[in-house]
Amino acid sequence: MIRVAIVGYGNLGRGVEKALAHAPDMQLVGVFTRRDPALIGCHSPAFSLSTLPQYAQDIDVCIVCGSSSHDLMDQVPDIARTFHTVDSFDTHAKALAYAHRVDDAARPHGHVSVVSAGWDPGLFSMNRMLMEAVLPQGATHTFWGRGVSQGHGAAVRQVQGVQDAVQYTIPKQAALDAARRGEAHLETRDKHERLCYVVAQPGADKARIVHDITTMPHYFDAYDTQVVFLSQEELDRDHKAMPHAGHVIRTGLTGTNHPQTMEFSLSLASNPEFTASVLVACARAAYRLGQQGRSGAYTLLDIPPVLLSPRTREELIQALL
Amino acid sequence: MIRVAIVGYGNLGRGVEKALAHAPDMQLVGVFTRRDPALIGCHSPAFSLSTLPQYAQDIDVCIVCGSSSHDLMDQVPDIARTFHTVDSFDTHAKALAYAHRVDDAARPHGHVSVVSAGWDPGLFSMNRMLMEAVLPQGATHTFWGRGVSQGHGAAVRQVQGVQDAVQYTIPKQAALDAARRGEAHLETRDKHERLCYVVAQPGADKARIVHDITTMPHYFDAYDTQVVFLSQEELDRDHKAMPHAGHVIRTGLTGTNHPQTMEFSLSLASNPEFTASVLVACARAAYRLGQQGRSGAYTLLDIPPVLLSPRTREELIQALL
Repeated sequence: MIRVAIVGYGNLGRGVEKALAHAPDMQLVGVFTRRDPALIGCHSPAFSLSTLPQYAQDIDVCIVCGSSSHDLMDQVPDIARTFHTVDSFDTHAKALAYAHRVDDAARPHGHVSVVSAGWDPGLFSMNRMLMEAVLPQGATHTFWGRGVSQGHGAAVRQVQGVQDAVQYTIPKQAALDAARRGEAHLETRDKHERLCYVVAQPGADKARIVHDITTMPHYFDAYDTQVVFLSQEELDRDHKAMPHAGHVIRTGLTGTNHPQTMEFSLSLASNPEFTASVLVACARAAYRLGQQGRSGAYTLLDIPPVLLSPRTREELIQALL
Repeated sequence: MIRVAIVGYGNLGRGVEKALAHAPDMQLVGVFTRRDPALIGCHSPAFSLSTLPQYAQDIDVCIVCGSSSHDLMDQVPDIARTFHTVDSFDTHAKALAYAHRVDDAARPHGHVSVVSAGWDPGLFSMNRMLMEAVLPQGATHTFWGRGVSQGHGAAVRQVQGVQDAVQYTIPKQAALDAARRGEAHLETRDKHERLCYVVAQPGADKARIVHDITTMPHYFDAYDTQVVFLSQEELDRDHKAMPHAGHVIRTGLTGTNHPQTMEFSLSLASNPEFTASVLVACARAAYRLGQQGRSGAYTLLDIPPVLLSPRTREELIQALL
């Protein structure tokens, strides 16, 4: 059995706890939190994060479920000195520097760290890479949604007069069709639209809220954005799930201009539970790479797929090849 | 530059020749054929297959493009003693035995053989494996088509009174939708239908041809099969391209019964050119695994994806992660 710890107990950490229940080859040693372990509402054993180093002999892999913007950059290199790690660091622009930083920490201690796992970055990255390798002449497009973008929701909630809000990113059907036809150039405004469900504070100027949202630089100004006002009760009832979805599409030409289209798609009722399921498979790979004597930072681009499955290579070739 | 040879010059071999033109890190040494090299209509250097062993110092990887039923089982183990190899062996029931046989031949000579590459087996196998690893509770369905199934077309051409024929395998939309909703059990008849375009010999009994096709065991009796008669001119004009397509779909449950759907799809104007493009990427991986000191048989389940791309790992993480 691979002995796993969860570090951080937000939506992602809770998803990992549930996913581990379906991993026949893993056991959850416990959840480690900066909060009071008695107060996080966890049925698994829960411990203070400060005690983690005491468990060096009891844990093989730590799945680190903190925030990319606040926690992982320092936390993972620190933990990788003592344990194999898996994380979902998702700030694309810093991913290479992050991988180097974790590699520098893990390698001298003989540990494996799977970094930036999940679906994007993660499975989507792997598909972008595979599709380009198979079809070197072509164009790749990634679409996100229909689904809840937490960063955009947080931005809307910062607007004056907004009490609560949820933002959906929605790919445009015409752009999906164009990507499948192989059109190379799609403008930002053509690919996605944004739909904001907003609870206004009592007496707030709704027209000004709409203006402030739709003109917000980076987040909304380059998109067609719709704002829908509703009550807090309606928002809580209809929009507090965390669905998401996405597509990676590449159309390339081979030979005498034969169009060839590859597509990888996800449709997720729970974004954090799906990401957690990817992290659990990566924890298995981290452990096995460690058993093979490897060390350092690995992405999903670097991992032989067979290491992600609990089944043996012989079984997989027999059953699934 | 990775020095590549093509062994066998049918549709697949010609596809490899075209795909190599878009590989910046590979050069085609030549095509090796059992036929008269002067008569195969090839613009690249062409040689008799019997001379292949003389090129031991000039070729890194042989992409072996023979038939799974007639050639590969003996040809690849033989060639793997002298070169790295890549093939598209696609008899699923014999794939594990084949991998062992090639492994036994390649390993003692320090060569790498990528076996059963292409899309099914190949990219579809990898996706079946990945999806099951991420979503252990669920059901996977593979659909083929709409596209030309060469084995089924050959079976129709064996029917008495048939002059020529092409067979399309077509997934049923209702079954695709059911797979995406997560229905575990789909009967064979529910998943695909078969459409045969048949040129009858002059004076042949068309009703008997339809009966013989639709009741043919294994090939057609378990399917809804439609037979359309047409002229040889119409068949040649409208049905001699080799399009294909397919879907791997898995829907699984996570946590408190959240449905999560993963799908990998292909839509191919030229089936052999696409398969050839996968083989060329695998030739790169075979060479690099050899450079790392590895040997033996590898499937797409065993290969770190990064080895398939001509770009460096750093570039890929920076650009695509």
